[in-house]
Amino acid sequence: MRKQRKVGHITLVGSSMGIVETRLKSMLREEINEDQPAVLPTAAAPRVGIIMGSDSDLPVMKDAAKILREFNVPAEVRIVSAHRTPEMMFSYASSARERGIQVIIAGAGGAAHLPGMVAALTPLPVIGVPVRASTLDGLDSLLSIVQMPRGVPVATVAINNATNAGLLAVRLLGISDIDLQARMAQYQEDRRDEVLVKDDKLEKGGWEDYLNS
Amino acid sequence: MRKQRKVGHITLVGSSMGIVETRLKSMLREEINEDQPAVLPTAAAPRVGIIMGSDSDLPVMKDAAKILREFNVPAEVRIVSAHRTPEMMFSYASSARERGIQVIIAGAGGAAHLPGMVAALTPLPVIGVPVRASTLDGLDSLLSIVQMPRGVPVATVAINNATNAGLLAVRLLGISDIDLQARMAQYQEDRRDEVLVKDDKLEKGGWEDYLNS
Amino acid sequence: MRKQRKVGHITLVGSSMGIVETRLKSMLREEINEDQPAVLPTAAAPRVGIIMGSDSDLPVMKDAAKILREFNVPAEVRIVSAHRTPEMMFSYASSARERGIQVIIAGAGGAAHLPGMVAALTPLPVIGVPVRASTLDGLDSLLSIVQMPRGVPVATVAINNATNAGLLAVRLLGISDIDLQARMAQYQEDRRDEVLVKDDKLEKGGWEDYLNS
Amino acid sequence: MRKQRKVGHITLVGSSMGIVETRLKSMLREEINEDQPAVLPTAAAPRVGIIMGSDSDLPVMKDAAKILREFNVPAEVRIVSAHRTPEMMFSYASSARERGIQVIIAGAGGAAHLPGMVAALTPLPVIGVPVRASTLDGLDSLLSIVQMPRGVPVATVAINNATNAGLLAVRLLGISDIDLQARMAQYQEDRRDEVLVKDDKLEKGGWEDYLNS
Amino acid sequence: MRKQRKVGHITLVGSSMGIVETRLKSMLREEINEDQPAVLPTAAAPRVGIIMGSDSDLPVMKDAAKILREFNVPAEVRIVSAHRTPEMMFSYASSARERGIQVIIAGAGGAAHLPGMVAALTPLPVIGVPVRASTLDGLDSLLSIVQMPRGVPVATVAINNATNAGLLAVRLLGISDIDLQARMAQYQEDRRDEVLVKDDKLEKGGWEDYLNS
Amino acid sequence: MRKQRKVGHITLVGSSMGIVETRLKSMLREEINEDQPAVLPTAAAPRVGIIMGSDSDLPVMKDAAKILREFNVPAEVRIVSAHRTPEMMFSYASSARERGIQVIIAGAGGAAHLPGMVAALTPLPVIGVPVRASTLDGLDSLLSIVQMPRGVPVATVAINNATNAGLLAVRLLGISDIDLQARMAQYQEDRRDEVLVKDDKLEKGGWEDYLNS
Amino acid sequence: MRKQRKVGHITLVGSSMGIVETRLKSMLREEINEDQPAVLPTAAAPRVGIIMGSDSDLPVMKDAAKILREFNVPAEVRIVSAHRTPEMMFSYASSARERGIQVIIAGAGGAAHLPGMVAALTPLPVIGVPVRASTLDGLDSLLSIVQMPRGVPVATVAINNATNAGLLAVRLLGISDIDLQARMAQYQEDRRDEVLVKDDKLEKGGWEDYLNS
Amino acid sequence: MRKQRKVGHITLVGSSMGIVETRLKSMLREEINEDQPAVLPTAAAPRVGIIMGSDSDLPVMKDAAKILREFNVPAEVRIVSAHRTPEMMFSYASSARERGIQVIIAGAGGAAHLPGMVAALTPLPVIGVPVRASTLDGLDSLLSIVQMPRGVPVATVAINNATNAGLLAVRLLGISDIDLQARMAQYQEDRRDEVLVKDDKLEKGGWEDYLNS
Repeated sequence: MRKQRKVGHITLVGSSMGIVETRLKSMLREEINEDQPAVLPTAAAPRVGIIMGSDSDLPVMKDAAKILREFNVPAEVRIVSAHRTPEMMFSYASSARERGIQVIIAGAGGAAHLPGMVAALTPLPVIGVPVRASTLDGLDSLLSIVQMPRGVPVATVAINNATNAGLLAVRLLGISDIDLQARMAQYQEDRRDEVLVKDDKLEKGGWEDYLNS
Repeated sequence: MRKQRKVGHITLVGSSMGIVETRLKSMLREEINEDQPAVLPTAAAPRVGIIMGSDSDLPVMKDAAKILREFNVPAEVRIVSAHRTPEMMFSYASSARERGIQVIIAGAGGAAHLPGMVAALTPLPVIGVPVRASTLDGLDSLLSIVQMPRGVPVATVAINNATNAGLLAVRLLGISDIDLQARMAQYQEDRRDEVLVKDDKLEKGGWEDYLNS
Repeated sequence: MRKQRKVGHITLVGSSMGIVETRLKSMLREEINEDQPAVLPTAAAPRVGIIMGSDSDLPVMKDAAKILREFNVPAEVRIVSAHRTPEMMFSYASSARERGIQVIIAGAGGAAHLPGMVAALTPLPVIGVPVRASTLDGLDSLLSIVQMPRGVPVATVAINNATNAGLLAVRLLGISDIDLQARMAQYQEDRRDEVLVKDDKLEKGGWEDYLNS
Repeated sequence: MRKQRKVGHITLVGSSMGIVETRLKSMLREEINEDQPAVLPTAAAPRVGIIMGSDSDLPVMKDAAKILREFNVPAEVRIVSAHRTPEMMFSYASSARERGIQVIIAGAGGAAHLPGMVAALTPLPVIGVPVRASTLDGLDSLLSIVQMPRGVPVATVAINNATNAGLLAVRLLGISDIDLQARMAQYQEDRRDEVLVKDDKLEKGGWEDYLNS
Repeated sequence: MRKQRKVGHITLVGSSMGIVETRLKSMLREEINEDQPAVLPTAAAPRVGIIMGSDSDLPVMKDAAKILREFNVPAEVRIVSAHRTPEMMFSYASSARERGIQVIIAGAGGAAHLPGMVAALTPLPVIGVPVRASTLDGLDSLLSIVQMPRGVPVATVAINNATNAGLLAVRLLGISDIDLQARMAQYQEDRRDEVLVKDDKLEKGGWEDYLNS
Repeated sequence: MRKQRKVGHITLVGSSMGIVETRLKSMLREEINEDQPAVLPTAAAPRVGIIMGSDSDLPVMKDAAKILREFNVPAEVRIVSAHRTPEMMFSYASSARERGIQVIIAGAGGAAHLPGMVAALTPLPVIGVPVRASTLDGLDSLLSIVQMPRGVPVATVAINNATNAGLLAVRLLGISDIDLQARMAQYQEDRRDEVLVKDDKLEKGGWEDYLNS
Repeated sequence: MRKQRKVGHITLVGSSMGIVETRLKSMLREEINEDQPAVLPTAAAPRVGIIMGSDSDLPVMKDAAKILREFNVPAEVRIVSAHRTPEMMFSYASSARERGIQVIIAGAGGAAHLPGMVAALTPLPVIGVPVRASTLDGLDSLLSIVQMPRGVPVATVAINNATNAGLLAVRLLGISDIDLQARMAQYQEDRRDEVLVKDDKLEKGGWEDYLNS
Repeated sequence: MRKQRKVGHITLVGSSMGIVETRLKSMLREEINEDQPAVLPTAAAPRVGIIMGSDSDLPVMKDAAKILREFNVPAEVRIVSAHRTPEMMFSYASSARERGIQVIIAGAGGAAHLPGMVAALTPLPVIGVPVRASTLDGLDSLLSIVQMPRGVPVATVAINNATNAGLLAVRLLGISDIDLQARMAQYQEDRRDEVLVKDDKLEKGGWEDYLNS
């Protein structure tokens, strides 16, 4: 986004100085990145941002991080709540592109607004993971994420299936990364081999042995 | 929100100068209101903000405006899209309290994020109206609005029932407005009378006459 | 409601004298309150009535009481069943306003009629909490509460989310209570801080440490 | 219900004297019936009460009246709204037994509370008809009626199927009315014959002729 | 049903003589009952038949038997499967009226056909209990029972709620049994008293004590 | 079924002699077929029985007849209602095998019991077609047909998709009919060709021409 | 399928030589079978192919194998994943007919594509078993299998009900196998006997003894 | 995919020579492209493949083509049916990468298998569009597409929302195409401006004028 004139503002307040510092630091990091992106990252700068609305989503969302590590795609994992930290969500989504993020994976449960809101605030592709909350078996999460209105798409995967969100991110990055695309093809072949080995075992030993082994 | 330090920003860009002016004007209005709230409103300052994600929601949402006019509660009607105008949504919700708005009614369809996001950005009560979109008969809108996580409530009414959103706003304002509360009680009695008159007609004339009349 | 002429009656019968006394006492209390509201309450008179259809709803509904206590809003917690104690429900809802109640939170499961019936009998705002019963995962409760016809709104929150019912009550009372509204804004900031602290921990330690800690 | 002591009251107020008279008359009728049931009914006293929440339900509910007329079972058809005329609903349900009503058929749509509330207020059997409202295809009505908690049953029939409500009422009355039961058996045979005639026509003429005729 | 001419037949075959005898005996009993109903019943002849599609439904359906015993209504409990014993189902339903049965309670799960088929074969009122099977949380059972076509009603109660089926049967029998109807009214009052006692305890001790006791 | 001893009976009664004759004729036909199957059929004896619960299902179910005619598989089309003509349904299903029927296609709507009941009464394969009734968009029909308990399978196809029911019947008969199986393979190729021709037209002319042509 | 000209190809690649050999062997088996079907099968050549998308489906799908063994119908059990081994799925389905397979039972969960894709690739009848996956209680599996478009039918059974898939396969094979059909009729009678024995026990001992035994 | 050894085959047969030629041509094109990709394309080689299961999906799917044209992204529009042209689907998906396709948009209705199967056969990102078929309001399409098992992701958008599929494709290509990404950001701003203009009109003229204009 080109800047012509700034209107509006985001307030930074904390109940203690430690809190304020933590928040300031976290926000400054984005601010800095905007002006001078990717300053001396000791680790590889993340290409994928994995965000979730609550740390209770982490046991599900970690699967996306695992896949990206498996494919050597640098990723960051963050808690960004649309409902509890709307300013940070706003800031995170608006600055992601300048910070070098290429794909955002966003997971949330219930009335899940994070993926759609982030998609509204960035031109980057956003992958949505409906996380099953305590009721309705994830249907509310799914519909809140996938049923976006015309204009703002979210690439939605299956309920709780952060593994597929990671794999989808790899496919997206593979569009312009031949090596990554080749590794994805290899990944698919490996999965095929696993099935073939299991099928072979099942066919040779019969289903009773298979179930008892 | 007390201001200590501003971090982050909102960009104002337009494809033409007319557009930029329109947007600037609309945002400045809020900005101004923040610093010097309720400056010489010729009309009564709105107590209720009725917002919707698209003008296609207006045929449904107008019913809330009708009810508020019936109760002489000043209201404003605005299009504020969480997905297409996130900055304005942010600005609108954050400044509503300073502008004198006491209740916000927000309607949206499909993956309806407007009510929940506004509720995240204001301590005012937010009433959500699930608007039935073209598929799934409004179930997606309902779940996207009502299934909010702990911490950020949205007072949800029935699908497409903006009339009830207006009536609920009147009840909320009636908590501290004896006159409004009395008029609500009268409204309920009037509805009762309508039913009694209909019942009387049905009982006297029989259902065949009733259906033919 | 102004009284012009009383028609109809409610019978008070009990299988034992103890029962009759209990019920008489409970009903007289409301009766008395109607004629001379808020007589010498040793404790603060309740501003919010939290009612539920069965004591099996209490483990869910107690969260509303917790929130209100946290905000120092005096509340009463009662069992009022639309189906098993319709007279008491009728009496409770009709007299709540005179007794000084300003907001009613009503929770029920299955074919949940309590919130809607109470809303029909009072001009006060009624917040409905769909409680998940043993089948259908709360969908029946949700639809029975939210899908109210035009004329009688119920402010519905998410399934089993009595916390949000309590927070919504605080927002409603905050319309005319600047202090309460400010504390709600603070509450939202505190929730934000919690997320920021968690995000900071996650970012610093990585998701594996986070999950193992 | 035996009367020991009356507690509570129902207020009768109207916006005009005509309204008050209409309502008074309608309520007194029940009151009178309680003390001296079935006084000189020029027409046969109704055995079945067909009630509905709104006159918009009449095009559906009339089918119950048709069936009862076909079986010569005297019935009354009334509009009794749980949400807009709760006092009349209360009065109607509480006094139905004394007035000689033996079965109540109650139809309503959306968050349909009428059948359940009436069942809570009478020991008579109550048949519930879920009326399809404008959204969710009647599922909300069905769940709001059928999913009653333990203690208060509603005999629910299919969505919009008031014909079956009428037939079910006939079956209930047939328990102690051999003639009615025999006519129900005959009704079933007549329906069977209709099918057999159609089947005969279909078999003889073939499906193409059948569809074109 | 008057008999004019018998057409069709039911075959009785068994894999062993013991089986054949068991089945013969069971069917002869109905046959005998048809010609000379209620031959020397040492116990009271059942007025209510409680049938279910499988003995796996018994833990749910026993609640109907409990209620009927509580009301001293003689009932029989039988396993009658529409899908596995269609002939017995046919025979049971067709002969129930002659055997003195006045109400049939039928419970089944999944694609539950028992209640509807029995209702098709008798003019008696049939109460259907949707039993929750292993998937879909009882929704399939509910729809398979309640959505009967015009002509054949089933009085459907809530999923797994055989208690209400029993109570509904009592209400049906109460139409012509003043004593039973009075006991139903008393039952409703007793339930009310239970709630009042609990409410009293809750109000006096507070919700924390209540939950801990 | 071998006959050892007949127990039970089916009554044949009619409201007029014409009705009785019609029904007698229709039932005798089956009776006769049982003792001397397939007596001089001027037309080819039907291999597939297409039955439906009501003639209102015929506009949907005719598609199965069309497919079977296209494949030269003789079929009969009948109205057999589980709920209104249970005896005929019983008779039809029990005798179908002896009459030379090899596959039964059964369509019904709402609480659709016909396919399951027929499957319970015959060892023949039964194909179920869920017909969309006036509410719930066919979901009730689908669940009532597909969710059969262990022991009695119904081969269910998509809602309203009688075409697929016909095609499935052809596949079943093709198991032992090489020619029919070959024609099914050809049918699949013809469908493929149709798509290829359309794809070719789309690719050559572009989607705008395609939509305008 | 007659071969005229081969176009297209399937690649066989493996991450290790062992894998390649396993896969080659498995595919050659089909290839060989195509040219010279049923070469010296020491065991009976399978008439039914039971395939599933993952070995996690085996605990459900084994029930089909059990039924077929009970009926002495030779069957093979294989893991064939539409999504992970599409080539093998393609090869399996295309060659099944030539290999002597007469019926295919395919089970899968979630977005279950295996049954429909196999049905698209063979003129054999395909029975689909919706396997309940971790969310949505099997509804997604059911709809993904049963809602096939016109042209390609899948004979769908109830969620997780592989027993019925096995029984349906027996019914299909019974069309041209009198002995198998007779055994199916006997199976149905045996199930009937089991119910009768249970009913007898229930009737004699009462439901309390039955539940306690 | 590297080729080591070809196993399996795809047959090319047609009912007429014209058909065979059409199909041959269509398949050869892919074949050729594999060996010598992108031979003299007079038009720009397509970067996005838009495919659909039937030409009845075209009125929905054309919106994706419109968006891509708006962004000057070359795309091809094809009919590729998973169920009726499985070989072409197989060939299309397997060769897309070699042909230079970077993103595939696949739309289908009912038991929609096309997006998932294509995703299984390519490492390219696949965007799935659930097309609403004649029943169940698109829920079956949505679940059949989004609920993919671990390993094979489909980027699912809202029901019937091919516009968003096109926009998502642009976002994916924008990962490595700064210009495209900038135009996407501009697109979002343009949508914002449209809303602002409408909001301005609504605010100035009031909702009644707005609705009447």
